[in-house]
Amino acid sequence: MLDVFVAGAGMTRIGRRPEPLPVLMAEAAHAALRAAGRELPDAIVVATMNPEEFLGDGNFASHVASHMGFADIPALRIETATSSGAAAFYTGFAQVAAGLHSTVLVVGGEKMTHLATPRVSELIGRSLDPYERAYGATMPALAGLVTRALIAHHGTTLREIAQVAVKNHANAVANPYAHFRTPVTLEQVLESRMVADPLRLLHCCPISDGAAAIVLSSARTPVRVAGVGQGTDTLAVRHRRDITSFTATQTAARAAFAMAGFGPERVEVAELHDAFAPFELVALEDIGLVPAGKAGRATLDGETARDGRLPVNPSGGLKARGHPLAATGIAQIVECTWQLMGCAEASQVPARVALTHSIGGLATNNWVTILTAV
Amino acid sequence: MLDVFVAGAGMTRIGRRPEPLPVLMAEAAHAALRAAGRELPDAIVVATMNPEEFLGDGNFASHVASHMGFADIPALRIETATSSGAAAFYTGFAQVAAGLHSTVLVVGGEKMTHLATPRVSELIGRSLDPYERAYGATMPALAGLVTRALIAHHGTTLREIAQVAVKNHANAVANPYAHFRTPVTLEQVLESRMVADPLRLLHCCPISDGAAAIVLSSARTPVRVAGVGQGTDTLAVRHRRDITSFTATQTAARAAFAMAGFGPERVEVAELHDAFAPFELVALEDIGLVPAGKAGRATLDGETARDGRLPVNPSGGLKARGHPLAATGIAQIVECTWQLMGCAEASQVPARVALTHSIGGLATNNWVTILTAV
Repeated sequence: MLDVFVAGAGMTRIGRRPEPLPVLMAEAAHAALRAAGRELPDAIVVATMNPEEFLGDGNFASHVASHMGFADIPALRIETATSSGAAAFYTGFAQVAAGLHSTVLVVGGEKMTHLATPRVSELIGRSLDPYERAYGATMPALAGLVTRALIAHHGTTLREIAQVAVKNHANAVANPYAHFRTPVTLEQVLESRMVADPLRLLHCCPISDGAAAIVLSSARTPVRVAGVGQGTDTLAVRHRRDITSFTATQTAARAAFAMAGFGPERVEVAELHDAFAPFELVALEDIGLVPAGKAGRATLDGETARDGRLPVNPSGGLKARGHPLAATGIAQIVECTWQLMGCAEASQVPARVALTHSIGGLATNNWVTILTAV
Repeated sequence: MLDVFVAGAGMTRIGRRPEPLPVLMAEAAHAALRAAGRELPDAIVVATMNPEEFLGDGNFASHVASHMGFADIPALRIETATSSGAAAFYTGFAQVAAGLHSTVLVVGGEKMTHLATPRVSELIGRSLDPYERAYGATMPALAGLVTRALIAHHGTTLREIAQVAVKNHANAVANPYAHFRTPVTLEQVLESRMVADPLRLLHCCPISDGAAAIVLSSARTPVRVAGVGQGTDTLAVRHRRDITSFTATQTAARAAFAMAGFGPERVEVAELHDAFAPFELVALEDIGLVPAGKAGRATLDGETARDGRLPVNPSGGLKARGHPLAATGIAQIVECTWQLMGCAEASQVPARVALTHSIGGLATNNWVTILTAV
């Protein structure tokens, strides 16, 4: 297997964007190519979760490649629900690692803010088990269930959960790409409108538009892809033994660390999937970044703050940078690339090993990716 | 790059199937695993074109893996419109070639017959350029345009085009997996109902349900994947210089032959994308299996019949075996695997080198795959 490096990274500002999705994806892709010093990639891997229903357009790999002026460059599309970006990164990694292509552009994006929120919720809900959906399950409803279980079985407190949102909003203030650049207080989080008891509005990521891109290369650069791991679980949440941890994250982390040849103790910065604030706490423990049962306390104590022992979501995370679905897994890797290259500007933290974590569906298809400064 | 072999192949009967798609995909997958002598793959690559709109379900890789009892096996989904199956095969190939997994299950399927034909046509039309769609373009309409150009610029005759359908229907009579096992005459084709002038009903593939699966392995088997090539083109048909040949097929064939280390003269059996009968003639020349301008004559002369010099679509092709979209690219490889292993039963032809060709959209994302008997 050939070594694989990140040659360039780029993304759009995340938020309500009036531009069509192919325009956003082209903006991110050309930024990543410019950063890589390349005019053309050898191949393109495209991530979008559901352009057919969000936009009414299919064949999206060809659609985007054509729009970017790359109609003659091989392109294909990857989808694993909300982790599609991370899955596309893995697929590009495999193409370079196999020697099939030496420079692969991975670009992901989503556009949803033109739709009414209930429609977006319905479409995202397609990633859940059909029988559970038939009983009214939505993504926030199931996340609320997970949160109730965390509180009941592990003593996680509402303050600990709210602090994740406070920290990530605070981080996003410095990030020019973030959807929300406004700080929030613990009180504001705890008093915001109820969404799915006990989850409130400020525990939940926004509906965002945006795109992100990475150029992967077999030629040595300052950032190496040290490990990529995937983990999966039953589509049906009721078929799981436990909902206070995610098997798919644990499996993905084990696989990624096995490929990297080291463990979580070496990770110095992480971008974790905090679509709902309590998920950051679950991920911290599932990946082994914090001992079991300690994630809430560590968060309240500032260990995961930007100036803490292990900065988590210095970008603001899904919560405040925003969550344009298939862009997210790639945006996390863009952020970590910038961190390792020392060009994260006001978000910069000192780090030579970075980890990203992306959740597909209700933790049915998760990914952990590890980057190291060469 | 590691060598990659086909360890097992399986498919469902194609046609109107009452079963849910995950059931069809499990049937094909378990048949392929049984043929490979494996209980479990290391990873799964899933192909479906648009399960969100055909079925109302998303996150389909996790959905299918869970249904098959493989919830803990890494799965992801690939989509390149109507060539999604071939793209998934390539993605599985890359995973094995890179050494990321040693046994990968590639499974593709589609279910559409429960929807009204105009709705299916609308959903398949999502793969076309939005501006051309806005002027009323549908897939059959553009195929009709291509056919008119073939007749006008290359002197292709209606009899030559109709003979493709006659041959493929004749082949499907022997295929227990085929959607249509009834022969048709030249007269029947030429007098069938007009669909998109000059294309008539019997020039067009049916709307089919079905699934197909391949197990890829790094361990040596009797069938080696000798070459895989992708070719792409502009989404908009109006942006192309010529519509009587498909650049995407030419590029894919060049790439596949380059990987294989030999040319089209060694191919002894082929499964080509004849969603519309004239497309088989275009593919024969684009791939170099027949000299330019000779495909129609060769077909009328029986060169591509099952007992001819180069049997083409011995399965019956998309025209008569059927075209369950994302299953098709894999079903073609299943057929060729069976041919090379000598277990194609009544469809058997003598061959040690086989080629498959799949078209995505209106030839925006095409694939050529070459298999050899070891």
